[in-house]
Amino acid sequence: MTEKLWGGRFKKKTDSEFFEFQRSIAYDHKLAEYDIAHSLIHVGALAASGILSGREASKLSKALKGILATVKTGAYVYDEGSEDIHTDIQNKVEKKVGKLSLKLHSLRSRNDQVAFDMKYYSMKKGIDVGNGLAGLIGALLKIGKACAGQPFVGYTHTRRAQMIGFGQYAAAYAGMFKRDFQKIDSFCERLVICLGAGALTGTAIPGSAYSGSIKKAGLSGEGVQVTGNPLDHVSDRDFVFELLSILALAQMHLSRIAEDMILYSTTEYGLIDLPEEFCTGSSLMPHKKNPDFLELVRGYSGKIYGNLVSVMTMMKGLPLSYNRDMQLDKEPLFSSVETVENELKIMAKFIAKIKVNKATVKKILTEDLSLYATELAEWLVIKHKVPFKTAHDCVGRVVVLLDKHANKLADIDEGLLLKIHPALKKSAIKKIMTPEYASKMKKTFTNRLPKMKK
Amino acid sequence: MTEKLWGGRFKKKTDSEFFEFQRSIAYDHKLAEYDIAHSLIHVGALAASGILSGREASKLSKALKGILATVKTGAYVYDEGSEDIHTDIQNKVEKKVGKLSLKLHSLRSRNDQVAFDMKYYSMKKGIDVGNGLAGLIGALLKIGKACAGQPFVGYTHTRRAQMIGFGQYAAAYAGMFKRDFQKIDSFCERLVICLGAGALTGTAIPGSAYSGSIKKAGLSGEGVQVTGNPLDHVSDRDFVFELLSILALAQMHLSRIAEDMILYSTTEYGLIDLPEEFCTGSSLMPHKKNPDFLELVRGYSGKIYGNLVSVMTMMKGLPLSYNRDMQLDKEPLFSSVETVENELKIMAKFIAKIKVNKATVKKILTEDLSLYATELAEWLVIKHKVPFKTAHDCVGRVVVLLDKHANKLADIDEGLLLKIHPALKKSAIKKIMTPEYASKMKKTFTNRLPKMKK
Amino acid sequence: MTEKLWGGRFKKKTDSEFFEFQRSIAYDHKLAEYDIAHSLIHVGALAASGILSGREASKLSKALKGILATVKTGAYVYDEGSEDIHTDIQNKVEKKVGKLSLKLHSLRSRNDQVAFDMKYYSMKKGIDVGNGLAGLIGALLKIGKACAGQPFVGYTHTRRAQMIGFGQYAAAYAGMFKRDFQKIDSFCERLVICLGAGALTGTAIPGSAYSGSIKKAGLSGEGVQVTGNPLDHVSDRDFVFELLSILALAQMHLSRIAEDMILYSTTEYGLIDLPEEFCTGSSLMPHKKNPDFLELVRGYSGKIYGNLVSVMTMMKGLPLSYNRDMQLDKEPLFSSVETVENELKIMAKFIAKIKVNKATVKKILTEDLSLYATELAEWLVIKHKVPFKTAHDCVGRVVVLLDKHANKLADIDEGLLLKIHPALKKSAIKKIMTPEYASKMKKTFTNRLPKMKK
Amino acid sequence: MTEKLWGGRFKKKTDSEFFEFQRSIAYDHKLAEYDIAHSLIHVGALAASGILSGREASKLSKALKGILATVKTGAYVYDEGSEDIHTDIQNKVEKKVGKLSLKLHSLRSRNDQVAFDMKYYSMKKGIDVGNGLAGLIGALLKIGKACAGQPFVGYTHTRRAQMIGFGQYAAAYAGMFKRDFQKIDSFCERLVICLGAGALTGTAIPGSAYSGSIKKAGLSGEGVQVTGNPLDHVSDRDFVFELLSILALAQMHLSRIAEDMILYSTTEYGLIDLPEEFCTGSSLMPHKKNPDFLELVRGYSGKIYGNLVSVMTMMKGLPLSYNRDMQLDKEPLFSSVETVENELKIMAKFIAKIKVNKATVKKILTEDLSLYATELAEWLVIKHKVPFKTAHDCVGRVVVLLDKHANKLADIDEGLLLKIHPALKKSAIKKIMTPEYASKMKKTFTNRLPKMKK
Repeated sequence: MTEKLWGGRFKKKTDSEFFEFQRSIAYDHKLAEYDIAHSLIHVGALAASGILSGREASKLSKALKGILATVKTGAYVYDEGSEDIHTDIQNKVEKKVGKLSLKLHSLRSRNDQVAFDMKYYSMKKGIDVGNGLAGLIGALLKIGKACAGQPFVGYTHTRRAQMIGFGQYAAAYAGMFKRDFQKIDSFCERLVICLGAGALTGTAIPGSAYSGSIKKAGLSGEGVQVTGNPLDHVSDRDFVFELLSILALAQMHLSRIAEDMILYSTTEYGLIDLPEEFCTGSSLMPHKKNPDFLELVRGYSGKIYGNLVSVMTMMKGLPLSYNRDMQLDKEPLFSSVETVENELKIMAKFIAKIKVNKATVKKILTEDLSLYATELAEWLVIKHKVPFKTAHDCVGRVVVLLDKHANKLADIDEGLLLKIHPALKKSAIKKIMTPEYASKMKKTFTNRLPKMKK
Repeated sequence: MTEKLWGGRFKKKTDSEFFEFQRSIAYDHKLAEYDIAHSLIHVGALAASGILSGREASKLSKALKGILATVKTGAYVYDEGSEDIHTDIQNKVEKKVGKLSLKLHSLRSRNDQVAFDMKYYSMKKGIDVGNGLAGLIGALLKIGKACAGQPFVGYTHTRRAQMIGFGQYAAAYAGMFKRDFQKIDSFCERLVICLGAGALTGTAIPGSAYSGSIKKAGLSGEGVQVTGNPLDHVSDRDFVFELLSILALAQMHLSRIAEDMILYSTTEYGLIDLPEEFCTGSSLMPHKKNPDFLELVRGYSGKIYGNLVSVMTMMKGLPLSYNRDMQLDKEPLFSSVETVENELKIMAKFIAKIKVNKATVKKILTEDLSLYATELAEWLVIKHKVPFKTAHDCVGRVVVLLDKHANKLADIDEGLLLKIHPALKKSAIKKIMTPEYASKMKKTFTNRLPKMKK
Repeated sequence: MTEKLWGGRFKKKTDSEFFEFQRSIAYDHKLAEYDIAHSLIHVGALAASGILSGREASKLSKALKGILATVKTGAYVYDEGSEDIHTDIQNKVEKKVGKLSLKLHSLRSRNDQVAFDMKYYSMKKGIDVGNGLAGLIGALLKIGKACAGQPFVGYTHTRRAQMIGFGQYAAAYAGMFKRDFQKIDSFCERLVICLGAGALTGTAIPGSAYSGSIKKAGLSGEGVQVTGNPLDHVSDRDFVFELLSILALAQMHLSRIAEDMILYSTTEYGLIDLPEEFCTGSSLMPHKKNPDFLELVRGYSGKIYGNLVSVMTMMKGLPLSYNRDMQLDKEPLFSSVETVENELKIMAKFIAKIKVNKATVKKILTEDLSLYATELAEWLVIKHKVPFKTAHDCVGRVVVLLDKHANKLADIDEGLLLKIHPALKKSAIKKIMTPEYASKMKKTFTNRLPKMKK
Repeated sequence: MTEKLWGGRFKKKTDSEFFEFQRSIAYDHKLAEYDIAHSLIHVGALAASGILSGREASKLSKALKGILATVKTGAYVYDEGSEDIHTDIQNKVEKKVGKLSLKLHSLRSRNDQVAFDMKYYSMKKGIDVGNGLAGLIGALLKIGKACAGQPFVGYTHTRRAQMIGFGQYAAAYAGMFKRDFQKIDSFCERLVICLGAGALTGTAIPGSAYSGSIKKAGLSGEGVQVTGNPLDHVSDRDFVFELLSILALAQMHLSRIAEDMILYSTTEYGLIDLPEEFCTGSSLMPHKKNPDFLELVRGYSGKIYGNLVSVMTMMKGLPLSYNRDMQLDKEPLFSSVETVENELKIMAKFIAKIKVNKATVKKILTEDLSLYATELAEWLVIKHKVPFKTAHDCVGRVVVLLDKHANKLADIDEGLLLKIHPALKKSAIKKIMTPEYASKMKKTFTNRLPKMKK
């Protein structure tokens, strides 16, 4: 039985601890589907160039398709003792077709397979992540629309700033995730899934044999091609680096919405009620309802950033072309893809179930007049032609008075206000420092909701 | 004199050490040009909405344009005591137009300015980096073309693997940098430079006033727009994150070519001669000619990766919308942009001057027969219908014999070869294990040279 | 004039852009003091081994001491055109002693100097950072002591958990910074400042000549030694890596206390009043008092982590011994040292001035009975022998009732409570769910305040 | 059956995808041993404070010890459906003692358990890693000693620099790993394994009850204590951060020795022969013997650095005290500990089997005279009182001549040498530019071999 795909020139037995150390089957079995696609194309190309007979090719193809079927149904069980997925599939083919299997790997290198497999995987998973993003964007736009007229508290520096609309708030996050979607989209469009590199310099199989076989396998539509530069292809991990970067940025957005939701749902803020289904309790403190989902999402920033750093570091300063270090691209990529996919899926369900605590929002927007300080200054500028810097100073002093009287305008001596500026009559202030006035005065922005490409 | 753009409500003097700690003029002065563009548009919008008179607006515009001219000529000197570039320009305007300057900042927030400035900067610098990449790609394609027929040694695992073409080698790197170029291109295309957000929720100036002013300023063509979501705009640093990611990937490519050049130019490898103009010596060892440029390029991976980590970390878990943490996006972005720009520029000159050491290459390709082990195996497969796995084993044993006889085929007993496989006559091996045969047998790949978009 | 410390074997002029690219004077001028110490020891060793005459040595020493004096007073001005600080000092010596300066660098390498300089700098700065930590620990213990009896709200998951003491809260942070102090202490103790390595393999100067000179220079006490392994010494940057790690951990602690202070000082939490001297305002919104100091501290996590990543990446996979990449250790180290020093200094002043908002704390501790849910469960366990898991469930149900009645025990039907558990009489609950009872029942921990070593 | 350790106050069922998302049993099962130790101490403390009867306590202890025995033998099988290891053990106890198990968790929080477990794990693994380091140091010192008189080629900038001793080379790495050992040692000494924190603020169990129980369990010697500050204890992950930093630094050293071995064993360098047992072949190229172990070690820098970044990022800006994010400290810590342990173990075996290729070393040291350029310059300085800078220049010119004549001194016109400096007779140069002279002239360093503490 062929236990390794190499070894003819070796006289000494591989050290067993080292053999364990270097095996990758525990994670690269996730590439089975893509690896079989490579083999199917390769068999076609070998037949087209006369290296396999038609009969041999169809026997190998049949065996491969049989194995592929088990992958698709989840029935594929990899041998834990195999070196890697390529060897594992080779061995399974051997079980089906015997000695003929020795011809499967003709003129082929694992360097070529693994680069192809990873690119194919990245394309497929890129689309999945895109769909996850679209789902979350949909949930955000939906809740934004449902709360279209709902005012909300806007913060800068974790400090109350101005009144905003909840729809605008949801749209801000939808906009971020839309940018992530566009990045994934652009990534998939630019990604070229190629093969035919041999180990680093191409093989004796003509490109046309490969092209024909790709077409026959129905994979041209997926963007599969013969490599334009084999040296580059086998040592290219740009797509891993880029996909990890895109996921890191999406993760950053996830960490921000998680942080907002954690804050807004505290007893102290009280702006949002969290769905209990996504909270957990304490083993000691019976009253706790903790926002664990959100905390884990925030915490996963570490993992997702760390995975990017892992691949960046691993690729630093590697000479051309393939080096074994590159095997270590898989775990970080799989980890980030799977984690972010899960986060997006659950976050979409989560967002659909949060509730704006309208009473609290209303209380804040009615009582905390400082939220309208900007509008008061703008009014002085527009209506009373006060230079802005002066208006800013005047309102600063009004705010100090409001602070001292716990935001109760009624308790402030009007004389003090008029001394700040003669236009600052209580009656005027009362009209301006309100949600209604503030909402009327926001004219700048176009308030476009982000739209998805398709 | 207006020393700060805020302060009306403050009763206590800012702590002087803290004031130093938080100032940004030492680095954000690089945004002067973009900040003035913001002011020019803003003045136009204030005039269009009646907040400034036509006369006021043209006085302010004139002052701003005067200052812009000093920026363009390099004559602009910032006041080291200013808090930031926005304040510095405000103060310079005041010196020119006196009290009228107090109206410049009407209905405007630094949050809006800094987001606009940084986006504008990123667009401009994105184009510059793109040009730097194009320059290096050009140098690689040129040397690749000049060495079109030149064979070279191909490596995997830092071990001699197979013969390659030097043109193919240069094209591999050109292909990497072309992918970087495409990323920058896609980045610039997706980047929206916007303004009009106020602090977080828009202002009383209608969007149309801004749009008109943008058009008048001739900046629509650069993609400047009114913000669609002010909350998002003021707290968006995605473009910094993405640009740093793209630069990190380009840097990774730079570190790889640097490593190759370091290795290939050692006495031991001897494949490439480095241009002395880019080397330095030792203060103690008189014979040293060190590849310092390449080492620094390799080492800068640390800085460029670190800058990305810096911004990723800083943005993690920040609540909406603007937070002061975001000020710390500037130093890492400027640092990565400037470093990579310099590396690209010098690397293009460097590559143009390297020399392939043809004699050494020829010696290796003639003497080291193991480079053609793959071709010999392929020949057994194609010509003699030996199953690949068997052919691989046979050639493995041939290699052991070659090793034992220092690659001198003549010294090997032909009987031993024929025992491995009857087809392995010396005369056949002698024909196959050559550069000529190997180069003839590489048929797979399309050998497309990467082409630049424009 | 000696413009470079190398160059005899070079025929071509160094490319000017490359020369700019590789110069380090802009940052390594900070090492002047340490570099002169190296030179003083070296001159002594050269004299002791007969390479310099006594007269030459004393002339050179005098010149060096003169230059050192200017460094100490801040009068030292480096030539911006110099390659590095070593060259700059060499040139300044030449100005003082003429041709004799050509002997200063005898049998010495910059590799040795820069490793020595950086180790010496790290030792000195390690002590400074230790002092900064001690200052902050002092401020925390002082405010903890001043608020010794002050109760406070304890959080887990950013959710109210149980009552704590403010002193205990301050001591928690003091404990963290004390661990940082211990790390710095251990770092300084293990750090060996050595020299005498030549470029990589030692020189013709006997170790005893160095030892004697170190003693004469009064630097044995600082731990200066002759290197035990020159190969290791010149390529050792472990101390940079370790110091950056220690600073990163201290920075993490700083980011946590900053986050706490940001939250606790919001209108929503209202637990802490921030000193206005460390806040800034908004250029648009007149009412804002933003916690900028805290946000910048939180944000600097990016820079400090990024600097560590920078050096980790740079050192990855470098072959022995010195490589030029290592020059890039300086900017990240200087940046982290200076930033953390500033943060510690200002944070100590900041902490000294925060105020616990006693009224708000009291209101929460009196009104929010859920804070005592744990005590109620513990009481059921201890007093009524209820198995803990059952007690936890019972109190969980009490909390649901309290929630429904806005924590007003009086409004709850006692029958419902007794149905949960017969011991749950209102009178009992009223006694247990109080700050007084809770504080009496915390018995576990030793409440040691961290003590500083010296 | 108790499926969760919380839940009384929850009305809605936990979302099943979220429940999956937050479970930790897949990795925290590795803490079983340490978690049982916590339970054993806790049961003792509950008994000592009268919350459990003596009979209850001994029944629970017996059950726990039975489970511990299965952990030690490897027979422990965790239920894949459990939330975490704490719950899994609780459930196993329930199977053994029924309802009594409901009392096990009395007055205890998972926050306390997990902090205790992780600290205990870190202590144990710290010792293991220390032993791994000691093993590798031993292998390096042994090979260094075995090659005591063996000269070797010393490099800076990946360029031949000077002759070194192979023993000195091995000692350089031994010195690095010794510093790592010292760091681990200091880490273990400073680490306090504590418990008794409740959720964040201690419990009703007196410290003395815990202390007594620790003593009874025989764990005082391991440094187990009652917590001095529960708030700090439950949210402290400093030890994870620090251990990951120490591992990252050791990993950096591993990546350097791996890089050296990769280079030195190329056909081009040829200085070292690698043990075949630690190499692998190519699936396509029959002649390849690739240094995969070394490449993987170099590549693992990514993972180990990434794990540190992961925890640094995760902890950034977390408010006091425990947050769920902290659960994500486990995977990175376990991953780094296990990877580095494996690397150290295999590297020690690997180093023991490398062979210095004496013939190649001798050829280089005899033929490449430039290796002695420094000695020639030193000789001019010492013997002929030539100022060093001048001597450096002279020898630079000699090197140019040697270069031109392929290092053949005989082929150089002596007149040209004497024109450079009258002392440069061929006979003198011939004597000085030799391994023998060079080795005699290295006097500086103390050549201490690092010694292990114990």
